[in-house]
Amino acid sequence: MKALVLERQRVLTLREIEIDETLGPSDVRIAMGVVGICGSDVHYYTDGGIGPFVVREPMVLGHEGAGIVVEVGGQVEGLGVGDRVCMEPGIPDMDSRASRLGLYNLDPAVTFWATPPVHGCLRESVVHPAAFTYRLPENVSLAWGAMVEPLAVGLHAATKARIRPGDVAVVVGAGTIGTVTALSALAGGCGRVIICDVVQERLDLAAGLGAITPVNAGKENLAEVTMEMTAGWGADIVFEASGNAAAAAAVVEPLRPGGCIVLVGMPNEKVPFDVVALAAKEARIETVFRYANVYDRAVELLTSGRIDVGKLITDTFSFEKSVEAFEYAAAPPATSLKVQIDFGS
Amino acid sequence: MKALVLERQRVLTLREIEIDETLGPSDVRIAMGVVGICGSDVHYYTDGGIGPFVVREPMVLGHEGAGIVVEVGGQVEGLGVGDRVCMEPGIPDMDSRASRLGLYNLDPAVTFWATPPVHGCLRESVVHPAAFTYRLPENVSLAWGAMVEPLAVGLHAATKARIRPGDVAVVVGAGTIGTVTALSALAGGCGRVIICDVVQERLDLAAGLGAITPVNAGKENLAEVTMEMTAGWGADIVFEASGNAAAAAAVVEPLRPGGCIVLVGMPNEKVPFDVVALAAKEARIETVFRYANVYDRAVELLTSGRIDVGKLITDTFSFEKSVEAFEYAAAPPATSLKVQIDFGS
Amino acid sequence: MKALVLERQRVLTLREIEIDETLGPSDVRIAMGVVGICGSDVHYYTDGGIGPFVVREPMVLGHEGAGIVVEVGGQVEGLGVGDRVCMEPGIPDMDSRASRLGLYNLDPAVTFWATPPVHGCLRESVVHPAAFTYRLPENVSLAWGAMVEPLAVGLHAATKARIRPGDVAVVVGAGTIGTVTALSALAGGCGRVIICDVVQERLDLAAGLGAITPVNAGKENLAEVTMEMTAGWGADIVFEASGNAAAAAAVVEPLRPGGCIVLVGMPNEKVPFDVVALAAKEARIETVFRYANVYDRAVELLTSGRIDVGKLITDTFSFEKSVEAFEYAAAPPATSLKVQIDFGS
Amino acid sequence: MKALVLERQRVLTLREIEIDETLGPSDVRIAMGVVGICGSDVHYYTDGGIGPFVVREPMVLGHEGAGIVVEVGGQVEGLGVGDRVCMEPGIPDMDSRASRLGLYNLDPAVTFWATPPVHGCLRESVVHPAAFTYRLPENVSLAWGAMVEPLAVGLHAATKARIRPGDVAVVVGAGTIGTVTALSALAGGCGRVIICDVVQERLDLAAGLGAITPVNAGKENLAEVTMEMTAGWGADIVFEASGNAAAAAAVVEPLRPGGCIVLVGMPNEKVPFDVVALAAKEARIETVFRYANVYDRAVELLTSGRIDVGKLITDTFSFEKSVEAFEYAAAPPATSLKVQIDFGS
Repeated sequence: MKALVLERQRVLTLREIEIDETLGPSDVRIAMGVVGICGSDVHYYTDGGIGPFVVREPMVLGHEGAGIVVEVGGQVEGLGVGDRVCMEPGIPDMDSRASRLGLYNLDPAVTFWATPPVHGCLRESVVHPAAFTYRLPENVSLAWGAMVEPLAVGLHAATKARIRPGDVAVVVGAGTIGTVTALSALAGGCGRVIICDVVQERLDLAAGLGAITPVNAGKENLAEVTMEMTAGWGADIVFEASGNAAAAAAVVEPLRPGGCIVLVGMPNEKVPFDVVALAAKEARIETVFRYANVYDRAVELLTSGRIDVGKLITDTFSFEKSVEAFEYAAAPPATSLKVQIDFGS
Repeated sequence: MKALVLERQRVLTLREIEIDETLGPSDVRIAMGVVGICGSDVHYYTDGGIGPFVVREPMVLGHEGAGIVVEVGGQVEGLGVGDRVCMEPGIPDMDSRASRLGLYNLDPAVTFWATPPVHGCLRESVVHPAAFTYRLPENVSLAWGAMVEPLAVGLHAATKARIRPGDVAVVVGAGTIGTVTALSALAGGCGRVIICDVVQERLDLAAGLGAITPVNAGKENLAEVTMEMTAGWGADIVFEASGNAAAAAAVVEPLRPGGCIVLVGMPNEKVPFDVVALAAKEARIETVFRYANVYDRAVELLTSGRIDVGKLITDTFSFEKSVEAFEYAAAPPATSLKVQIDFGS
Repeated sequence: MKALVLERQRVLTLREIEIDETLGPSDVRIAMGVVGICGSDVHYYTDGGIGPFVVREPMVLGHEGAGIVVEVGGQVEGLGVGDRVCMEPGIPDMDSRASRLGLYNLDPAVTFWATPPVHGCLRESVVHPAAFTYRLPENVSLAWGAMVEPLAVGLHAATKARIRPGDVAVVVGAGTIGTVTALSALAGGCGRVIICDVVQERLDLAAGLGAITPVNAGKENLAEVTMEMTAGWGADIVFEASGNAAAAAAVVEPLRPGGCIVLVGMPNEKVPFDVVALAAKEARIETVFRYANVYDRAVELLTSGRIDVGKLITDTFSFEKSVEAFEYAAAPPATSLKVQIDFGS
Repeated sequence: MKALVLERQRVLTLREIEIDETLGPSDVRIAMGVVGICGSDVHYYTDGGIGPFVVREPMVLGHEGAGIVVEVGGQVEGLGVGDRVCMEPGIPDMDSRASRLGLYNLDPAVTFWATPPVHGCLRESVVHPAAFTYRLPENVSLAWGAMVEPLAVGLHAATKARIRPGDVAVVVGAGTIGTVTALSALAGGCGRVIICDVVQERLDLAAGLGAITPVNAGKENLAEVTMEMTAGWGADIVFEASGNAAAAAAVVEPLRPGGCIVLVGMPNEKVPFDVVALAAKEARIETVFRYANVYDRAVELLTSGRIDVGKLITDTFSFEKSVEAFEYAAAPPATSLKVQIDFGS
């Protein structure tokens, strides 16, 4: 089949590739419809690896996928040919110790699309376990379906925060992940979100999505704005979604006593935390690794209209123009947020 | 001052009454603006008591109040003359064992407006601790301010449920408390609410407030509808807000395995729970007593527009017509939800 | 193989039975060593069924088992021939929605030993998934290993209670389950346990197991004793382990404001709860269904000596005398707690 | 009255000092009996300050106190002359926003003994709010009573960890705080504790206190030992009690997926956390600031014998020899843990 293959760092080709895709009894075969480009896909393209994960052999990119079921295994229930679906890209061993605790995302044996050496979903079709394939209702498009993956990251972060109704949250970073985190925080019970970035275009986009107050860190002081908006008390929750080490180290400042910090971004460097300052507020810090048990919730929130991801999809390329899509995503304009590739199905 | 006094069961007069209202250093004096009528007010009027709480001497009714600050004690900070405010009607001993744990609503020494023998706020002015008085921002009217009290009940219930983003909730009962609970559940993170009642007019009102699906228990089976909407899994949370013992006993049916039941209503009779059925789903049951630490959150959610209580206020009477207001509230039409008394200030 | 077969109500025979026990690649074969008799086994014997579970065909009894591994499937890691082990008697579908959440005990498709029509473990050998088979260290005997199953019930209840260090707990009922719940509460962080029963011999046994205060409900008032011991505050947690509906309805009395009730016992009748009294204390009620993710913890607590179940095993019969063991267990003396059957291996 | 006064850095005198100690209606006056020396007391002595807290005027040291009630305010209930008591050294404003949430330790207005400019309790008598004074039962000595303060730190840390029964915990650091944390972890539900230090004498002491496994970091690798003891899974909880930045940065290594880190120690420098490594295990990090709502629990655990602090009190000096006590505590032998000052009452 045809696929977008990362041959090696900086070399991307759209070409035929042979992948063994035998359909097991609990699997479905899906014709891909839309695939979003994630920051990690771009990283593999530009750098050839992320930390310990190095691309040593040609690998198909893409893990934010939606498509249409074209074949169904013998034991599959609840899914049929023609169903529009999105797919959870990580497949754990459900008998592992982590999985048994409900933490299947932390199973070390999990395989995840487009994480070397596992092929991703930027190809004509994939075979996937039905248990990790989610039907999209009529009012959720394939483009929205492909947004479930990044939304799941924000939703998992919001779940970990254990939001109480009416909480005030700060989100540091207004890229795709920061923005879906802000949307998830609001949908998850926050009364108000303060979002902070240095790119004004991203702040403008976020500010139009609900009870979200933008703070341009180049012009304003986040902690000061937060304290002013909360009568000197601070935010109940601070989500760090910039992946910037300096920003991550500063999360304690806008926090209220007894508040919660959720580290969503993944800084390359160590983050120098001031433990005494954290302790003085008895901050709780949650970390997140992908997501577990939130895909169905993400689909539900899109279906009921509680979350609208339409404005986040700023750019769409055809599958044929996949290489251009990556070149664009590797050096995007300030107004670009999520770039998707549409298979035209 | 003039006040609405319950002289004894069924005898209500609007008359002068003398109440010692010395202003302490941490108190504010408030000219009352709007007071909502609660089911408990009506109960005291029609029955002369609620369980162990019997009206033995003339008592001023009303505990859902908002007004304007007219005098401020010497040590008060953050509130000034002219501020529009709403008031938390229960005043605990903050040194009690319960208060120290953050459970000040459970302090047995708490005094609460219009709970015998404590006078309520259906009178020209009240003196109240500044610490339990909350400023309303410009975009929240006094009528909305007087809705903070019932909303706090729903919000406290939603907080106790520990909603996870995207949860599906069932609310049994679509009276004022059921409706504010449904709004709180949505604002607090639910993706969808199913509300159940036998009064179609109430269901119609609720259905217009958001992602709320009405179920008329006279025509449909709640458990069946819930199972159908959740692919046979059940609701994550069931809020019982009808106060009906039979309805309360049935809450386990629409619940999912591992779900949560919140008992908001207060049935007169014992509720015959099927413990084996509850255990088979490992249901967690939360009970609530008024609220604690949610008034500021309720004001925040009204301010940011995340909760709209406008349609819940169906009837308004002037203070002069308070007795008529109670007669109306004691036998309301099906289209009536919250009846308020406006002091015309 | 030889097995203890419940032919039908009241008819129990020790005889040969043919059971297909093909060893799968992830299974182990275990020669049974010790099996405890549970109240449910006795119930099936005396009544022929429990609620909806009716014995319609001959069924092997027993689900509290320990033994020695005699054969190991090809993909099994971490277990070898000769290992002494105990086994979790319920086998869930790990791909089910409940299992994926970590709630594998709530999977409706779970099969459980000696729950019709599934054969139990009172037979010479069993084949069991390695994933639900736990190795016993040297200092834990097979008799103790067979106690892991009832202990897991108490430990799961203690886990659900979310004990805070130094909590005071009440346990209602001093049978095997009440006693292991008391031990689990202490091991799980309680500072003191008050245990209540009407059988003085059981109370005497429990009182010798640690910081456990016995209350004979025939002579003393549980709520009064609890209030006296807690300076009028009440117990942080009340575990209901009697299965008696009247006792279950009374659990709110000794509870503190903001306390937790765990319903461990399974009353045959509906339990008439006073919701207003529960709400006045904002009681949280947890229900439990068997256990999940606690077997390894139970083994750990026995290994480290934090829990000692030695005195709970009051009677031991040989496998050959299994029928007598059941007759004894069906009408035990007051001094009897756990009856076990030893295969003499 | 006579008091141990820190005149300025390194200058400590036992002398008369005048302190206004008017007895309020809710206060008690206490003749001091035993006061423990805390690391912070020693710090003020040797360094003249801790971070922003600088000793600018003569200040009485000591905050780990127990004594005997000698006078009682008019509104005090539950305490009488002659009662043996210990005292919570921080006095919050119970009307503050933090206090109302149950987080009174985080109230910025709290006053705390021996934190500049507040005098401590190393003096003949103190006046203290009855609400923060706890009666000791007969079987708890004044010396043990003075241990309640450090024990409260460990117990608060154990409470924040939300231990599940049978958890395995690692404690980094075997000083007084590390040791009381290990005891609290065991009493709070852990099945086993691994404690790590470089001082063998401290490890030997800790190893004699229960199911505690010592690891000498100078000779062994903590992560390796932990993985070996937990079949490669890791510890459920890691308590950092050394206050060493490098040790704090390494807490993720022995942790299990989904585990919890509690930062008890207060490193002087920033701690360079590896967020990616924390995220891969979805670690939850809790920080603690002193304690709240645990004094009564600490007394309960000492009373019921669940925690034994006897071996932790290694050295006792008379009040007259207070200065020598501090000189000793500032340069203690490896076998010394807690140094106390006894008033000989």
